[in-house]
Amino acid sequence: MASAIMERMKAEQEAQERLGHLQGFAYPSSSRTFKSSPDESFRVPCRTVNLSNGEHLDLYDTSGIYGDPAAEIDVKKGIPLLRESWLQARSDIEIIKPASDTAGLSSPKVTRKGRAGSNITQFALARAGVITPEMRYAALRENIGDPHNTVTPEMVREEIASGRAIIPANINHPEAEPMIIGSRFRVKINSNIGNSSVSSSVAEEVEKMVFSAIYGADTVMDLSTGSRIHETREWILRNSPVPIGTVPLYQALEKVKGVAEDLSFDVFRDTLIEQAEQGVDYFTIHAGLLRRFIPAAAKRLTGIVSRGGSIMARWCIAHHQENFLYANFDEICDICASYDVAISLGDGLRPGSQHDANDEAQFGELKILGELAERAWQKGVQVIIEGPGHVPMHLIKENMDLQKDYCHNAPFYTLGPLVTDIAPGYDHFTSGIGAAMIGWLGTAMLCYVTPKEHLGLPRRDDVREGLMAYRIAAHAADLARGHPAAMAWDNAMSKARFEFRWEDQFALSINPERARKFHDEDLPEECHKNSHYCSMCGPKFCSARLSREIKNLSQEEIDKCLTAE
Amino acid sequence: MASAIMERMKAEQEAQERLGHLQGFAYPSSSRTFKSSPDESFRVPCRTVNLSNGEHLDLYDTSGIYGDPAAEIDVKKGIPLLRESWLQARSDIEIIKPASDTAGLSSPKVTRKGRAGSNITQFALARAGVITPEMRYAALRENIGDPHNTVTPEMVREEIASGRAIIPANINHPEAEPMIIGSRFRVKINSNIGNSSVSSSVAEEVEKMVFSAIYGADTVMDLSTGSRIHETREWILRNSPVPIGTVPLYQALEKVKGVAEDLSFDVFRDTLIEQAEQGVDYFTIHAGLLRRFIPAAAKRLTGIVSRGGSIMARWCIAHHQENFLYANFDEICDICASYDVAISLGDGLRPGSQHDANDEAQFGELKILGELAERAWQKGVQVIIEGPGHVPMHLIKENMDLQKDYCHNAPFYTLGPLVTDIAPGYDHFTSGIGAAMIGWLGTAMLCYVTPKEHLGLPRRDDVREGLMAYRIAAHAADLARGHPAAMAWDNAMSKARFEFRWEDQFALSINPERARKFHDEDLPEECHKNSHYCSMCGPKFCSARLSREIKNLSQEEIDKCLTAE
Repeated sequence: MASAIMERMKAEQEAQERLGHLQGFAYPSSSRTFKSSPDESFRVPCRTVNLSNGEHLDLYDTSGIYGDPAAEIDVKKGIPLLRESWLQARSDIEIIKPASDTAGLSSPKVTRKGRAGSNITQFALARAGVITPEMRYAALRENIGDPHNTVTPEMVREEIASGRAIIPANINHPEAEPMIIGSRFRVKINSNIGNSSVSSSVAEEVEKMVFSAIYGADTVMDLSTGSRIHETREWILRNSPVPIGTVPLYQALEKVKGVAEDLSFDVFRDTLIEQAEQGVDYFTIHAGLLRRFIPAAAKRLTGIVSRGGSIMARWCIAHHQENFLYANFDEICDICASYDVAISLGDGLRPGSQHDANDEAQFGELKILGELAERAWQKGVQVIIEGPGHVPMHLIKENMDLQKDYCHNAPFYTLGPLVTDIAPGYDHFTSGIGAAMIGWLGTAMLCYVTPKEHLGLPRRDDVREGLMAYRIAAHAADLARGHPAAMAWDNAMSKARFEFRWEDQFALSINPERARKFHDEDLPEECHKNSHYCSMCGPKFCSARLSREIKNLSQEEIDKCLTAE
Repeated sequence: MASAIMERMKAEQEAQERLGHLQGFAYPSSSRTFKSSPDESFRVPCRTVNLSNGEHLDLYDTSGIYGDPAAEIDVKKGIPLLRESWLQARSDIEIIKPASDTAGLSSPKVTRKGRAGSNITQFALARAGVITPEMRYAALRENIGDPHNTVTPEMVREEIASGRAIIPANINHPEAEPMIIGSRFRVKINSNIGNSSVSSSVAEEVEKMVFSAIYGADTVMDLSTGSRIHETREWILRNSPVPIGTVPLYQALEKVKGVAEDLSFDVFRDTLIEQAEQGVDYFTIHAGLLRRFIPAAAKRLTGIVSRGGSIMARWCIAHHQENFLYANFDEICDICASYDVAISLGDGLRPGSQHDANDEAQFGELKILGELAERAWQKGVQVIIEGPGHVPMHLIKENMDLQKDYCHNAPFYTLGPLVTDIAPGYDHFTSGIGAAMIGWLGTAMLCYVTPKEHLGLPRRDDVREGLMAYRIAAHAADLARGHPAAMAWDNAMSKARFEFRWEDQFALSINPERARKFHDEDLPEECHKNSHYCSMCGPKFCSARLSREIKNLSQEEIDKCLTAE
């Protein structure tokens, strides 16, 4: 026990040291570049891979300042306030004194709120016909790598106005680079971080957020349930270039010392305001778990696997009352609307096993989420819908079809789904299969799963492995949906492979370090990087080598081959 | 360079040492058990997982003798000749003197061939209405874990007779446990092993085969292209409990010192006979790559990625003649029919990139494979059809549909497919997504891909990781297709998870060692194996714990919750 505590302290110290020397991460053969808006009034950061044949490939980039090798980063001060001038220019929001402290950071970020009577959300503004700076920024990002610049600011506005997309951008998170979540855009991925009472520290969580940004997370959820939840979140927010989501119920439960029965809407309301003032961009709210679904959930093989869902179910049973999140949903919406926090309607009754997939409890809740989405829209609040979970392949399409129907095409945000339960240790993969499929069918964001799922809290390297699996799933979905920039990436890789440009292959892969390491196990020398073979087949059997010789034949030689008897 | 050679020698020595001390592998909480035939005349080995609550789960097992902790294994002598008494009892086959040597082994295996005028294959016998011992054995294996014993020997006979399934069981590979490949049966997986001129040794290859059997490969292909090909294969065959496949063209090329232009059907014929006498159970034959497809392939982004395909294309161009495998296909069939070697019709023109998927060259060859399948059946030869490759998700179904149509429902045997090319280092996963999907659609066998794909020759641990990914894909496909035994496994795992039977969760997982290791990173103590939480959430937030309490409520308590205002 004592050694476990020592280990925890050591891990925290080491993370603190690394954060003290944080430098921008440089992908190989790549540079930080910018794509300018058509009128050149602003620009968005990209990663450009510079290939050895003089060509280049522009890639969408989530790393923010962490992808800039020249950047000076001091996590105590936070990262630059990208949106500050846009926020200052607005007349519908005002600066207020926050309810809570800044947790020891010295960021210049101020706290804001919508003026009484104003509709300040991206959704309300979109409906009013306004194209905001956030919409322009997100639209331009979507066009990285797409020579046709398919996405226009007007298209973004329309998708948001219809409820089919959101830009999660709390007015109190000015550091984040705006991005859009919706089925007509690139499939996005989320990484989950956060401590538990058993594991992790503030420094390690900040590091996981940095890793997440570098390795491709479009948003990050801080799901801390242990100690120092407020402080952890503040350090994350002030240093995060990507939107941050939370489940406020967790901190509310911490405030009542972990006793679910002691929860109340008062405690919850205070928590919402505290987190909204800090700058959380979206809240998971388990308002769809009505008490009448509890018997059906009790019959299941694996009951309720959602933390928030099991907490609310317990509360309902203890108080003999309807779920207080449902009962007070209007007020929740009013609070969210004041800061433009999006609501992620939680799937407290998602299935936790193949056995329970697509059951009465799950779809009963989904219908309620559809009703709640409409109520949230009436209040001007942006909405996404959370989804499963554990679903065998043949039942995945039904999930997408019913969600579109019940929830009026609001963006779907699934956790996988896992397509089998037999492989703990590999659940980033079992769920990546389902995620790729449901992304192809129209799911807007995929919440990752790491190799530690069902076994323990993910560490920094688990976060990276989960992200690798989910970048693959999201990209495969983009490719299957015909996204213009997706095929360009695959083609660049295939061309590099066929032409034996090994350094380019490594630079173009989602994990260049690993690709190089695997190649170098057998062929580590510098000269091997020009070899027209690898250790799989050797020179005589390399099909790419043989194939290139065929490609270089003249038409005459080919004709001779075809016509001779 | 010298150090690379030293490393290779060291790796070989260490593998030799390990093989010298080979003992049966014991999965945790498991025992080697047997399922008896209804008339109790024979039995097939299973692995039974003994759970801590007194229940058990029977699992299909590919490990053969390597899964028997009590077995004495001497790789120099080979493993027991399981089918020897069945072969001795047959009057349609005779013992002959083999053309080649036994490579230093002292196995009692003799060499056999079909008597002139006899039709000895499983296919011919099935058509004649005969249910062979191999069919009974394979049928019984399919029923492991299925209380309904859905598969009957007659069903197996009919599937083979119709060409929809095969039992690859060369009369010269008496060591192998018969198994069936077909869309009505469990989805099977294959691992690829074999040296190259750059890497590996006989001992390391034998070890990869043993690893393959232990970790779930239903068949293994020895794709050696380096040195000592005959010897490597002999050691593998005499020690393999699973069917072995090869691409005879590789050894034929080795015989002409790697010069494709020097190949001839004479060299190829000799190679076929040599390998058939050794006991290879199925040959990949690239007879569908007709010269008229070469221009279309030359236009591609990644040309021809099949080794055999690129070799044959080169030969056609050099000789201005039709592919000699196609030209001599009848004789190839006659040879295969004499030993009951199945033919795996090679997809020499499979796409090697997303860009090239489903193109004219690929489907042109597929049509020819359908014609060749019919010709093979006329000669009594068992047939499977090889498939892609690299295919984005939205194009996968077309592959399955066309293959069923062109190839008259012969079993489909795909390599993945990879659903994106951007992730070398993770291609077991990019291809596992496509494999799961195409398995669900009806593909009978999935050829694995390891993390080393596109980068280098897989080593022993890469073999295991490839198998983990493919066991997941195949099982997910079985689950989606409603296989009775598949859901039982998922349910057993989910139940163990919900009841916090941690040791049972580990024992039931496809990689018990890894599951335990991940769990123990944070909670290593013995007492933790009874904890009603893990480090993901800790005790207060564990949804399974909260959920179980809900499950234990009385009906009265639930009613009170629902009815109170």
